Amino acid sequence: MDSEAMLGVSYGLDTFYFLICGALVMWMAAGFAMLESGLVRAKNTAEILTKNIVLYGVASIMYLLVGYYIMYSGTEGGLFPSLGFLIGDENAVDAVTAEGLAEGEGYYSMRADFFFQVVFAAASMSIVSGAVAERMKLWAFMAFAVVMTGFIYPIQGFWSWGGGFLDELGYSDFAGSGIVHMAGATAALAGVILLGARKGKYGPNGQINAIPGANLPLATLGAFILWMGWFGFNGGSQLRMSTVEDANAVAQVFTNTNMSAAGGLVAALITARLLFGKSDLTMVLNGALAGLVAITAEPLTPSALQAALIGAVGGVLVVFSILALDKLKLDDPVGAISVHGVVGIWAVLVVPLTNADASFVAQLIGIVCIFAWVFIASLIVWSIIKAVMGLRVSEEEEYEGVDIAECGLEAYPEFVRK
Amino acid sequence: MDSEAMLGVSYGLDTFYFLICGALVMWMAAGFAMLESGLVRAKNTAEILTKNIVLYGVASIMYLLVGYYIMYSGTEGGLFPSLGFLIGDENAVDAVTAEGLAEGEGYYSMRADFFFQVVFAAASMSIVSGAVAERMKLWAFMAFAVVMTGFIYPIQGFWSWGGGFLDELGYSDFAGSGIVHMAGATAALAGVILLGARKGKYGPNGQINAIPGANLPLATLGAFILWMGWFGFNGGSQLRMSTVEDANAVAQVFTNTNMSAAGGLVAALITARLLFGKSDLTMVLNGALAGLVAITAEPLTPSALQAALIGAVGGVLVVFSILALDKLKLDDPVGAISVHGVVGIWAVLVVPLTNADASFVAQLIGIVCIFAWVFIASLIVWSIIKAVMGLRVSEEEEYEGVDIAECGLEAYPEFVRK
Amino acid sequence: MDSEAMLGVSYGLDTFYFLICGALVMWMAAGFAMLESGLVRAKNTAEILTKNIVLYGVASIMYLLVGYYIMYSGTEGGLFPSLGFLIGDENAVDAVTAEGLAEGEGYYSMRADFFFQVVFAAASMSIVSGAVAERMKLWAFMAFAVVMTGFIYPIQGFWSWGGGFLDELGYSDFAGSGIVHMAGATAALAGVILLGARKGKYGPNGQINAIPGANLPLATLGAFILWMGWFGFNGGSQLRMSTVEDANAVAQVFTNTNMSAAGGLVAALITARLLFGKSDLTMVLNGALAGLVAITAEPLTPSALQAALIGAVGGVLVVFSILALDKLKLDDPVGAISVHGVVGIWAVLVVPLTNADASFVAQLIGIVCIFAWVFIASLIVWSIIKAVMGLRVSEEEEYEGVDIAECGLEAYPEFVRK
Repeated sequence: MDSEAMLGVSYGLDTFYFLICGALVMWMAAGFAMLESGLVRAKNTAEILTKNIVLYGVASIMYLLVGYYIMYSGTEGGLFPSLGFLIGDENAVDAVTAEGLAEGEGYYSMRADFFFQVVFAAASMSIVSGAVAERMKLWAFMAFAVVMTGFIYPIQGFWSWGGGFLDELGYSDFAGSGIVHMAGATAALAGVILLGARKGKYGPNGQINAIPGANLPLATLGAFILWMGWFGFNGGSQLRMSTVEDANAVAQVFTNTNMSAAGGLVAALITARLLFGKSDLTMVLNGALAGLVAITAEPLTPSALQAALIGAVGGVLVVFSILALDKLKLDDPVGAISVHGVVGIWAVLVVPLTNADASFVAQLIGIVCIFAWVFIASLIVWSIIKAVMGLRVSEEEEYEGVDIAECGLEAYPEFVRK
Repeated sequence: MDSEAMLGVSYGLDTFYFLICGALVMWMAAGFAMLESGLVRAKNTAEILTKNIVLYGVASIMYLLVGYYIMYSGTEGGLFPSLGFLIGDENAVDAVTAEGLAEGEGYYSMRADFFFQVVFAAASMSIVSGAVAERMKLWAFMAFAVVMTGFIYPIQGFWSWGGGFLDELGYSDFAGSGIVHMAGATAALAGVILLGARKGKYGPNGQINAIPGANLPLATLGAFILWMGWFGFNGGSQLRMSTVEDANAVAQVFTNTNMSAAGGLVAALITARLLFGKSDLTMVLNGALAGLVAITAEPLTPSALQAALIGAVGGVLVVFSILALDKLKLDDPVGAISVHGVVGIWAVLVVPLTNADASFVAQLIGIVCIFAWVFIASLIVWSIIKAVMGLRVSEEEEYEGVDIAECGLEAYPEFVRK
Repeated sequence: MDSEAMLGVSYGLDTFYFLICGALVMWMAAGFAMLESGLVRAKNTAEILTKNIVLYGVASIMYLLVGYYIMYSGTEGGLFPSLGFLIGDENAVDAVTAEGLAEGEGYYSMRADFFFQVVFAAASMSIVSGAVAERMKLWAFMAFAVVMTGFIYPIQGFWSWGGGFLDELGYSDFAGSGIVHMAGATAALAGVILLGARKGKYGPNGQINAIPGANLPLATLGAFILWMGWFGFNGGSQLRMSTVEDANAVAQVFTNTNMSAAGGLVAALITARLLFGKSDLTMVLNGALAGLVAITAEPLTPSALQAALIGAVGGVLVVFSILALDKLKLDDPVGAISVHGVVGIWAVLVVPLTNADASFVAQLIGIVCIFAWVFIASLIVWSIIKAVMGLRVSEEEEYEGVDIAECGLEAYPEFVRK
């Protein structure tokens, strides 16, 4: 068996690893859909399901058309990305393969790279849908999804992962706590500010009314799906499997991802029990997700125990953040801004604690740049959409439920008492 | 490290790839179960769940007993398959391995091949259950499953994938848009014709009454599961991962499968919006599945953009096909015949557009032969079952729901208003 | 490409295989959560979801802190494990890798080994939650989870998989029908005895009242998830993928796992039909799971047909066992003791039939030792918890549902008639 055959096996393994991790990230789209549809009221369920599956389709198409090119074709160290269409040079796959061959080492298919990247773009947008649930127009949301996945996300993605100025500056974000999660939460925040709270959420005298989700088994399923998919999200971000060093790294990433989620959920459980006297399931779910976000910026350098502690801090943070946002009357029905935004910042800032190559200053600059860009760009885009078609359904539609208004059907036509 | 060790790694990678793809296709059984149980009424939910999980068990057993032998042991270029039991020569695994060794190249375990093939047989039968939902007797369905997975499916499978006459003729169907999907839809069509529509579906003056599904989050989950499983369905059909060429091919297949589903759902959304004025979630789900079926006959040769367009045509087709079947009073509660049959034909016929090795004539002959065989054989088998035990539950049972009548329990005993 | 590169690919493949199998076993946690939440009443759903996700977090943390060390650091052939913290020697990974290098053969990352083992510990505890559902206090359950996953499970795990006296004796349990499944069921049995039956389950004159589960699609989804995850559970237990022999073995394990589940569900369906005259879906689901448990002690040596038969016996057994436990007034809402305990014993005892290296006597000794240890230890721990904080919610809380009492929320606030 000669070295070409050997290259084939190495190349095959790395490509397969990448594709399976990508399929797991794609599976996170189902996780977001289940989580969000379980946490809204029955009358708004079909609409949020529609948003979730359609945004995945839109993200795939926009990222193919322009996003991937923008994110990965810019000048090294640059601020402005290159513009272009489709996934770029059609011969790139063969060129990269030839390069790998010449260097006598394994490599993976660039087609697998596109597949892996496209599911990240979709994940970023999935974060938005939960925060604006139960009151935003379906097609206003879709219009934003087009711009977010085609331009806003890839431009800041270029800054770090595409070799732009944040990369040169030393900003370190392994699988994207800032680039994917905080970016999504920031776009959501801009939307929530312009959109306003759901009717009845905040009373005239400062009361905060709980609006319970209709289907908690679905929400729990969603959290489990996200947890499983996150092994691909973080594990795939090592980008390679075919050396001893890489394999050890991916194994550490899987273990740490699991431990951080475990730490997050247990910490959130205890925090909720102490604050409310009850073992609030929705806080436990958000605690697990907070643990996952918390470790995403650096799932490799912490020990398993450190990972559990980093996640636990995320789990405590998310409970207080959810309470604080309600105080600020920022109505986020599923807690997405807290889970992905607040904990995303924690994740990025804690990197230097275990990774000597990262600096606190670079992390801070990264967070500020990503936040500023995504917030301002999103605010502008949401404002344009608001002016052109309106962001919010009518009061009657909100009262009746957006399912009938937007989708012309009900999610549970036989179950709900009217 | 010598060449035997090298072979081990190559053999191990290809076998692992095959097994994981097989597990993903097995997962599609859950997808069909969730999709179908979400799209029927609450009173018929437990029965369709029972059908779905039992058919998977029956398919596994029948395909082990006779199906695999029939599909893969016939004479090259033949019309009639060989008959035999179990998976054939018990030494086949070692023989194939030895052959691979002698040729100095990697290979995969034939036991993995059986596992991968058996889940395809089950997938074909899963398509039937949705179309005959809410009125067919459970045990009549099971009797058909025995014949379908043991004989009808494997015989035509032999024609193409077993090296029979369709293969020799040049019929090209990568992962089975015709062989698996259209075959399943054709068997369903024969059943629906003999079975008749659900009571109340079609009014006396030609009205078509909508019968909404009871649980759309479940249906959406089912669509996501099918989408994820399809990466195994199409990706595994390359059969090999351990060369640069194969790895690139599998990566292209994953990407195209994803893009075609995305194209299908967005096209179905827009079509439904234009036709009905609403963003009908059930049409979006069927659009995604139509996109997946549309690319299954050839997920390798199209570019990612072509894949999205092929899927988009599937997404438009499926909406019109669902409307047309209702005009013909062919009552298919979940749209299975449209998704897998009508779009399956589209998938097979569009292959020559991107694959120069395929010919339109061979594709047409393939479609006609598969349709004719499966339709006639199914019609005969359904008719025999009808004569012996009856196909349809009584009117009272249909009114009360088949769950109580067939399964002696209710799917949601605490939820439904009576 | 030199032998170091070759080792990298081999090491990478085995590690990746291990991690993916581990992710599939982690996914089983979602399966248990869905199965159990579908089989309880609506008013107890949120609480069992909370138990399921929190026990997974607790298991991860306890197994990291002490369990893994206890299970894998004892003296060869010993009865008492060593005590220690965390996953032991931090340099173990590199040591093992160096050893593999020196021997010129592939190996896998010990970090992947920890990840794979930790999900087994969680699976063992998941079995308990179903049996004690609808009446046990949440925090009493959590306290038990700490001891079970940190000590009770790993100590007997050391006896077999850690090289202890059962291993030396020749006890053979491939993926843990006894070590994981029967152990979990035994701990559950001890809890059920101390806890007593749900109010209203058994009438004063010996009637057994059915208490139907609230959401059978969820339960079915749970069974499918467990089935899928079991490919990792059994398939990963071969521990290696990178040789022809290992790859053939893993392929056989996947096939047999699938066939045994198929045999189990069809046998349970027929048994239930003959006994009750109805095709009881819950028995079908338990039949599939019984088939999976039945093959777990030896999924490698049986032929595919033998696997289906071993599973079929499990499927018959589980139906009669569920009926028998009700006669004994042992109230197990989801049938966990029957599926994992009774069928677990069958699985261990049938090993010598196909595996010539196993002896019936050694299997019997293994079963007795594991049962005795887990039952006595669990009984003591449950008793201490009962004395300290009580095991059971109050009668009013049980009547109102534990969701409100323990979690302060409802799983389906809009669906249920009150």
